[in-house]
Amino acid sequence: MVDKNTQGIILDPWMHHYADRSSGLSASEVRALFAVANRPEVVSLAGGMPYVRAISEERIKETLNRVIDERGPEALQYGSGQGHPLLREQIVQVMAKEGISARPDDVVVTTGSQHGLDLVARLFINPGDVVLAESPSYVGALGVFRSYQADVRHVPMDDDGIIPSALQEAIDQARSEGKPIKMIYLIPNFQNPAGVTLSAARRLEIIDIAHEAEILIVEDNPYGLLWFDQPAPPAMRAAGDKGIIYLGSFSKTLAPGLRVGWVVAPHGIREKLILASEAAVLSPSPFSQLVVADYLAHTDWQAQIDEFRGLYKERRDAMVDALAHELPGVRHTNPGGGFFLWLDLPEGLNSKEMLPRAVTELVAYTPGTAFFADGRGAAHMRLAFCYPTPDNIREGISRLAKVIREEVELIETFDPKPTATSSDAHVGSPPPNLA
Amino acid sequence: MVDKNTQGIILDPWMHHYADRSSGLSASEVRALFAVANRPEVVSLAGGMPYVRAISEERIKETLNRVIDERGPEALQYGSGQGHPLLREQIVQVMAKEGISARPDDVVVTTGSQHGLDLVARLFINPGDVVLAESPSYVGALGVFRSYQADVRHVPMDDDGIIPSALQEAIDQARSEGKPIKMIYLIPNFQNPAGVTLSAARRLEIIDIAHEAEILIVEDNPYGLLWFDQPAPPAMRAAGDKGIIYLGSFSKTLAPGLRVGWVVAPHGIREKLILASEAAVLSPSPFSQLVVADYLAHTDWQAQIDEFRGLYKERRDAMVDALAHELPGVRHTNPGGGFFLWLDLPEGLNSKEMLPRAVTELVAYTPGTAFFADGRGAAHMRLAFCYPTPDNIREGISRLAKVIREEVELIETFDPKPTATSSDAHVGSPPPNLA
Repeated sequence: MVDKNTQGIILDPWMHHYADRSSGLSASEVRALFAVANRPEVVSLAGGMPYVRAISEERIKETLNRVIDERGPEALQYGSGQGHPLLREQIVQVMAKEGISARPDDVVVTTGSQHGLDLVARLFINPGDVVLAESPSYVGALGVFRSYQADVRHVPMDDDGIIPSALQEAIDQARSEGKPIKMIYLIPNFQNPAGVTLSAARRLEIIDIAHEAEILIVEDNPYGLLWFDQPAPPAMRAAGDKGIIYLGSFSKTLAPGLRVGWVVAPHGIREKLILASEAAVLSPSPFSQLVVADYLAHTDWQAQIDEFRGLYKERRDAMVDALAHELPGVRHTNPGGGFFLWLDLPEGLNSKEMLPRAVTELVAYTPGTAFFADGRGAAHMRLAFCYPTPDNIREGISRLAKVIREEVELIETFDPKPTATSSDAHVGSPPPNLA
Repeated sequence: MVDKNTQGIILDPWMHHYADRSSGLSASEVRALFAVANRPEVVSLAGGMPYVRAISEERIKETLNRVIDERGPEALQYGSGQGHPLLREQIVQVMAKEGISARPDDVVVTTGSQHGLDLVARLFINPGDVVLAESPSYVGALGVFRSYQADVRHVPMDDDGIIPSALQEAIDQARSEGKPIKMIYLIPNFQNPAGVTLSAARRLEIIDIAHEAEILIVEDNPYGLLWFDQPAPPAMRAAGDKGIIYLGSFSKTLAPGLRVGWVVAPHGIREKLILASEAAVLSPSPFSQLVVADYLAHTDWQAQIDEFRGLYKERRDAMVDALAHELPGVRHTNPGGGFFLWLDLPEGLNSKEMLPRAVTELVAYTPGTAFFADGRGAAHMRLAFCYPTPDNIREGISRLAKVIREEVELIETFDPKPTATSSDAHVGSPPPNLA
């Protein structure tokens, strides 16, 4: 029952009363960055906030007024644990865009897909159980897994996503230790933080491996519809519902402030998810659900997503072009959609240690360490192009490049090395090849 | 890892994969009643749904439009884990009405107070830890405690609420078994389901006992402002913040469909609650929070609460009068506020077994068994007067009385007994005296 969180320990008379699982709670690096990102003079390439200003406020107001006029008492009342039938019908239509065939009864609406993941973890993870995740993986998912005391193991990726042979090795390794593997957590499309997409062929390979090993796949897909150059391959859930839990979200295609996401799961799991959701929150907000349902029914939501795609593509281009111009030798991924790219720092640089200097230069990013459960990632950073304008992105990359160049000069002055650049030389185990 | 939930067991290929805690998930009796209560021909005295039609839809629309006009991008974006500062300031004002002195920084906004309780339970309860609760207690709280595998023990109440000497005995008993006691969960005002209020003198006694034993009090107060005859005594949290976690809610004073509640907790606990909330849902809905904040800032919310008080008082009176007329010999509590009263059935009747017959007669209630963690309660029922109109309440009580009279006649025909009525004679251990 030793508490790893250092906040308030000394003054907390209840520190010996907490449950064992509370030791898994710690302030994420992204959390501290929120405060920094809010300072207007800082160009934040840190937070994954969607550009909600692109949504028509007039249309939102029309929706809000219509919800109250047509379904006021229902919107303001308690609702069902599974979520509103109208919204579940529309979610089925949204998922069809990514090749998924499902029925409204397969869907459980949640308080954002984060809560969907929390409920899935609550259902399956005993302390010490293994969760296999991409390397790197979403910071919020790692926080959930940690809060249930999971043993998260990262599986290497390359430009085509998680590597099937590496996944098989990780499974064999955990099994040889006698440890239960509860799930394979994946973001196949425009991954957070790496910005890579799992290839169509590999999706089927991964499904085969998981079926063979009788391990659940948790497919987290908040970015799938936000492609720039070509659509993502069909969702893994499009191959069938066997052994796949699918997480969807309106946070990136509509607005995160409503906190509406969903889970699609096989029957037995779904029934338990509803019970778990009822225990946790009674029901997802009927008001938010009916707002989303009305918006989908009365607006051209696909045109809105097209607008988002154009907007984020322009920002991706601005960032990639600025990086080519300002930091020509530095490797990074080239995402085909979504919000993020992943950058390998020049040898010897540490993204976590460099952050205060970057903030002094009025630019923020997320250190790679946030995306590993095991302390790795200092040689990398995540850059988000979703929120700042293209001009701000160019300015931010210019400031970041200055910080990186000065850090490199500092190292070369005090510790000159003749070897070729290898961004990964100083981390303990080989990180993913994401170049 | 044996699964106690019988739903879908046979078809669920993942049944051996669930975490141990998932065995604590089971469908509540209230859940099944939701479906019944939705049939228009049934008078439902079952669900605790507030009468949201009393709220002016015009005022809600004004609020919604103002939130978008003045704070649209903020309302639609991700927010902070602790909750919006504007709302936390107003929550402090709301709590002052019940004698509580707190600062905005003491408050953590949650997705309804249910999620506040879930997060508190997650922080503190290891499997097997003892939670002390009133006898009977809130079905949703029992669901949360069960989902964390707590050992819930009920402490007897009388008309003045939980009995201090009985609380001390329960503490001594658990301690003598070497079991950690993690919290005392109480609803001091117009308790759900019993409708009784903890007296002012006992509040201080209970706090002294808890302090002496170094056990946290969780004070759940959704109904405090909804008094009929005289205000409730000051909240327990009004005595100071030492060892008290306070749960508040806008579900009964505004609207449950927004899912906005809050927790006030001592510093160290509060910091952990914020981290736990971020892991579970990232943040409570900024949109819902700003709607509540705007509503509190721009409308006479105290007048709205006065209107609710008058409305629910009229319904309480209708129910109590109808019971006196229809079932003169039957004991029940006489709540001074809130939504519920607790009824002791005539000897030999079983509220759970009788429910299908009642639904056939087009009236629904909640069997007392829902409010005990240990199977007791069949000799009692909860009657909710919050949602149906006074006319419907009279009709519902008339139908219920018919069912009860016929059940009594049936028993007297087949199993005549000369003894005096004692509603508690057939339950295993002595239930509370709530007459």
